[in-house]
Amino acid sequence: AVGALVADLHPADIADIIESLTENEKRLLFQALDARTASEVVVELSDFSRDQVLEGIHTQRLADIVDDMPSDEATDFIAELPAGQAAEVLRRIDLEDTEDVRTLLQYDEDSAGGIMQLELLSARVDQTVQDAIDAIRQAKDEAEDIYNVFVVDAQNRLMGTLPIFKLLLEKPDVVIESIFEPCPLIIKANEDQETVAHKFRHYDLVSAPVVDDDGHLLGRITIDDVMEVLEEETREDLLRMAGASSEEDMFYSNQIFRISRLRLPWLLTNMFGGLVTGYILWLFKLTVPEAVTLMSFVPVIMSMGGNVGIQSSTIMVRGFAVGAVNPSNILKMLFKEIRVAAVIGCTCGLAVGLLAQLWHGSYKLGVVVGFSMLGAIMSAALTGTIFPALFKRIGVDPAISSGPFVTTANDIIGVLIYFGIAAIFYRLLLW
Amino acid sequence: AVGALVADLHPADIADIIESLTENEKRLLFQALDARTASEVVVELSDFSRDQVLEGIHTQRLADIVDDMPSDEATDFIAELPAGQAAEVLRRIDLEDTEDVRTLLQYDEDSAGGIMQLELLSARVDQTVQDAIDAIRQAKDEAEDIYNVFVVDAQNRLMGTLPIFKLLLEKPDVVIESIFEPCPLIIKANEDQETVAHKFRHYDLVSAPVVDDDGHLLGRITIDDVMEVLEEETREDLLRMAGASSEEDMFYSNQIFRISRLRLPWLLTNMFGGLVTGYILWLFKLTVPEAVTLMSFVPVIMSMGGNVGIQSSTIMVRGFAVGAVNPSNILKMLFKEIRVAAVIGCTCGLAVGLLAQLWHGSYKLGVVVGFSMLGAIMSAALTGTIFPALFKRIGVDPAISSGPFVTTANDIIGVLIYFGIAAIFYRLLLW
Ligand SMILES: [Mg+2]
Ligand SMILES: [Mg+2]
Ligand SMILES: [Mg+2]
Ligand SMILES: [Mg+2]
Ligand SMILES: [Mg+2]
Ligand SMILES: [Mg+2]
Ligand SMILES: [Mg+2]
Ligand SMILES: [Mg+2]
Ligand SMILES: [Mg+2]
Ligand SMILES: [Mg+2]
Ligand SMILES: [Mg+2]
Ligand SMILES: [Mg+2]
Ligand SMILES: [Mg+2]
Repeated sequence: AVGALVADLHPADIADIIESLTENEKRLLFQALDARTASEVVVELSDFSRDQVLEGIHTQRLADIVDDMPSDEATDFIAELPAGQAAEVLRRIDLEDTEDVRTLLQYDEDSAGGIMQLELLSARVDQTVQDAIDAIRQAKDEAEDIYNVFVVDAQNRLMGTLPIFKLLLEKPDVVIESIFEPCPLIIKANEDQETVAHKFRHYDLVSAPVVDDDGHLLGRITIDDVMEVLEEETREDLLRMAGASSEEDMFYSNQIFRISRLRLPWLLTNMFGGLVTGYILWLFKLTVPEAVTLMSFVPVIMSMGGNVGIQSSTIMVRGFAVGAVNPSNILKMLFKEIRVAAVIGCTCGLAVGLLAQLWHGSYKLGVVVGFSMLGAIMSAALTGTIFPALFKRIGVDPAISSGPFVTTANDIIGVLIYFGIAAIFYRLLLW
Repeated sequence: AVGALVADLHPADIADIIESLTENEKRLLFQALDARTASEVVVELSDFSRDQVLEGIHTQRLADIVDDMPSDEATDFIAELPAGQAAEVLRRIDLEDTEDVRTLLQYDEDSAGGIMQLELLSARVDQTVQDAIDAIRQAKDEAEDIYNVFVVDAQNRLMGTLPIFKLLLEKPDVVIESIFEPCPLIIKANEDQETVAHKFRHYDLVSAPVVDDDGHLLGRITIDDVMEVLEEETREDLLRMAGASSEEDMFYSNQIFRISRLRLPWLLTNMFGGLVTGYILWLFKLTVPEAVTLMSFVPVIMSMGGNVGIQSSTIMVRGFAVGAVNPSNILKMLFKEIRVAAVIGCTCGLAVGLLAQLWHGSYKLGVVVGFSMLGAIMSAALTGTIFPALFKRIGVDPAISSGPFVTTANDIIGVLIYFGIAAIFYRLLLW
């Protein structure tokens, strides 16, 4: 009865409904689904809800669900089960599926082999259009997302591709050899999934073949897998930019010490920067009457430097990522960034300088604070632009690595500029 | 001759080559391409290179290039030309294309209508499989990325869809009415492109129909357009998180004052935070001998608070985005974050407290600095978790809006905690 209520819905919508239910309701609704629907729904669930609906499930039911999954999803699914349960499920599913999963389990999960599926349509180059159509007819219940037939030789080596709509327009007795096209993209099984995803985007594809080192057709990758990779990588980068490691760990793990250990290195880099900044403050030994007054503008100068640095480096990092910044215009970007920083620096310097003068009634203080703000903002824009470019140059991902360096450098430089200017105006002894 | 060198390459690869050339070489290579190839290449170019290759181009050549574009790309292209040139190009392309472009120009560029194309295959529900195949044969040179035939009634109202491979398996005289399927997703022309993109992802589609308010079929959106939207939105969010507005402005505009004005609001929010923090420092009027020593740990405590806050809010924002964090487990996430912050805070507090003790030989200082670090880190984790949740609750995008608030709150709270603890241990007068 519960199952009938959702029977007409798309599996992704059923998954959404399950996410919104209580633990008990989730399990009840999931139990009411037939194996086919359950297999389509379970892969759409969050790890959290999936664990809940699978808790205490009968192994035979689990095997029925896995049996209905495409090979790539079955592999990912089985890889996450406890070893004993995985072995039991593998024993109970179709022999052919078991072999598929064992084959796919051999590939690194971040490689092309780790995201490809084995279900595909292929035809030998010496077969006819009618043969290819017959193959489609035979496979139509098993294979999803069929956009083309891959063309192979007698040794299963990939020759090219044949879009489905082309089959429609040809006579049944035409030999495939005379009508197939070259593949715009052929993927090696051990290529990194991120590289694969970017090539897919580059050529605007919906499906591409995966081959072994000798060119034998192994499987195919489809656009939905690619989109998942792109999303995963974006999320990974965002978390890494904050020094927070993988999302598996951050969201789903409950190992407090492990999470802390993963987040600490990035924080310790920043702690070093903060300590050096403090040491500089201390070195200047501001024991003149103005000391506390001067100190009270340290936070605003530091935080402005930090934020301008984040803006500049974000603009550079994104500019590299979309190709808007490249070696040919990098100097132009730098020069533009400096001019923008000059405008921003003058605005903020004027504002904070005036405020300092009004608050403490000292023109000297106003001038020192104002010029320091300008200097801190301009140097922050410089480091924020140069660090990503430097990291890019030495082949390290600027998105991930430049953050802590930019922040640390700006903290130190900002305070140095401030006390340098103060030392000049107040003629402080530096030691 | 130059054209022949690249004739066999994919347009996206030719575009990559052009990006790497000097301005003159870019123009030479582009001139050597036939109109069809040029039309496929120009849409792949960065705005920067596109402007270079199009500078001084003959209007007739421009019209030939636009003539070969699909309607959605032609519209975007013409929308970016100077008004006079756009009108001239519209006059010179096929009448049908002119009408298509005029139709598409009416839609908001961020709406479904703004990304749809008018080229599609449709068949009336009372036609036969053979009729549909004939339609494909007729359109095969014009239409790209054909995955299905849309099924409409006599008034062009959308009824459903027919995947190409299904046509292959049916007899030519079967009536479409008996074999078509419902569309899993039907898009209204005025829907926001970001909503459209997420629905595409939700249902794992490669193509979907766009209809008007009365259900008449207007056009279709394909997966490559959707991927562009998703990338555009990710970039937009990243820049917005740094308070840096749109990438058009940041990368390609040369209006220094405009760019500065766009970046300032976010910076001024942070400036306010820095000033309040400084005011608190000043309020405490640290004129005791320990003043400078205490001050020298302000930067490290502020910067650690800031960074832990960024980690916590990034984890929350991504957690919301991927659905790993939701109302049902938000308290659990908060509790976990507090425990992680306790571990991180104890580690960093111990390290910096010991260092303070060793450096200045004062146990009291070590205790004050150490506990302040722990307090600042834990409160930063709290605000970093709570602000995104709050923004999410009131329906504002937490990715964009929580950043400056988290940073500002942490600056202020961190210093308050530090001087609060110092006041207790050093029995300072607060006024
Ligand atoms: Mg099976
Ligand atoms: Mg896998
Ligand atoms: Mg990777
Ligand atoms: Mg493209
Ligand atoms: Mg798949
Ligand atoms: Mg990556
Ligand atoms: Mg035309
Ligand atoms: Mg458009
Ligand atoms: Mg938008
Ligand atoms: Mg999906
Ligand atoms: Mg395209
Ligand atoms: Mg398009
Ligand atoms: Mg957005």
